[in-house]
Amino acid sequence: MSATVLYMSMSLDGFIAGPNEGPDNGLGDGGHRLHEWALTGADADHEGVSGRLTGANRQVVDEFMATGAIVAGRGTFEPAGGWGGDHHDGVPIFVLSRQEPGIDTGQWPLVTYVSDVRTAMTEAKQAAGEKNVLVHGAATAQLALAAGLLDELEIHLIPVLLGQGRLLFDHLGPEHIELDRTRVLEGDGVTHLHYRVRR
Amino acid sequence: MSATVLYMSMSLDGFIAGPNEGPDNGLGDGGHRLHEWALTGADADHEGVSGRLTGANRQVVDEFMATGAIVAGRGTFEPAGGWGGDHHDGVPIFVLSRQEPGIDTGQWPLVTYVSDVRTAMTEAKQAAGEKNVLVHGAATAQLALAAGLLDELEIHLIPVLLGQGRLLFDHLGPEHIELDRTRVLEGDGVTHLHYRVRR
Repeated sequence: MSATVLYMSMSLDGFIAGPNEGPDNGLGDGGHRLHEWALTGADADHEGVSGRLTGANRQVVDEFMATGAIVAGRGTFEPAGGWGGDHHDGVPIFVLSRQEPGIDTGQWPLVTYVSDVRTAMTEAKQAAGEKNVLVHGAATAQLALAAGLLDELEIHLIPVLLGQGRLLFDHLGPEHIELDRTRVLEGDGVTHLHYRVRR
Repeated sequence: MSATVLYMSMSLDGFIAGPNEGPDNGLGDGGHRLHEWALTGADADHEGVSGRLTGANRQVVDEFMATGAIVAGRGTFEPAGGWGGDHHDGVPIFVLSRQEPGIDTGQWPLVTYVSDVRTAMTEAKQAAGEKNVLVHGAATAQLALAAGLLDELEIHLIPVLLGQGRLLFDHLGPEHIELDRTRVLEGDGVTHLHYRVRR
């Protein structure tokens, strides 16, 4: 069955970006550190991000590149240049935003701006069919968790304390959200932790 | 070689206690959830906390019960009733506190209050000899990390989002602290992640 799966690189102290994020500093100061594991394998021949990855890292990247739709927050999508309008393989991209697009999306038929998380997740799941939905972004994750719309989490846990930045899990209520650990993969420079949200 | 090792149970969202901590609520609201993995094995026959634990959980508890000295923050030590003056096997306990003891420690020869983290860690290491030093408490961890006095971390990562409470890694500076993952153990209801602090 199709699942909505949050894929995020997070430091051991919970950050998914460094401090001082901005339009020209999308990952915050030093935030690129969290993505080194995935970029190590990238090459200049446009073979793609997973080109030279091996083992667990390759497996995880292959998985999220096999998803059938994307839900991303505006704060993830726009600083990433909207992935040029196509994250992978022409799958639809639903951008969660309460504002008008901050970049020109006119030539990108795969991209739809959606103002509420339930619509975004529902439409993405429908578009993905049998495939999973890749969910990206801290604010989106928080809204989806709070609304009970997130099925699984794949946390790429990076062996670093960033000290400051943007926390992945923030602004959640005091109710516990129980998870079941379904997989642990030890990749080069990262530990991939997979959880299912308990309902 | 003897190492100073932080042992802490932490939720996936980074909390080591729930909200509203107080003298009579040492773990905060719902914070006991983080310690269930270790208590599952406890019994009423005073066989000890590790009595009925098995597998990875048993291994980890056995390890920290084999340490040769303790450094704990006042905020950990006092709400725990000072462990009755003996955490395990009569090893010395150094309590990091800038205040006078808030509980009566007069009859506890193993307990020493120390006001700075360097002295606490140095004396504990000396007292432990060949054995490791067990470090406990968020504030102590933060001070020891900032001062470069923490050698290793054993994080018992609990599959729950607590939402609110006290973060383990807080008040750190913006300099990255790099870690090397040295072990991952999948216990029942917990993932034990061991790291060495890179120098």
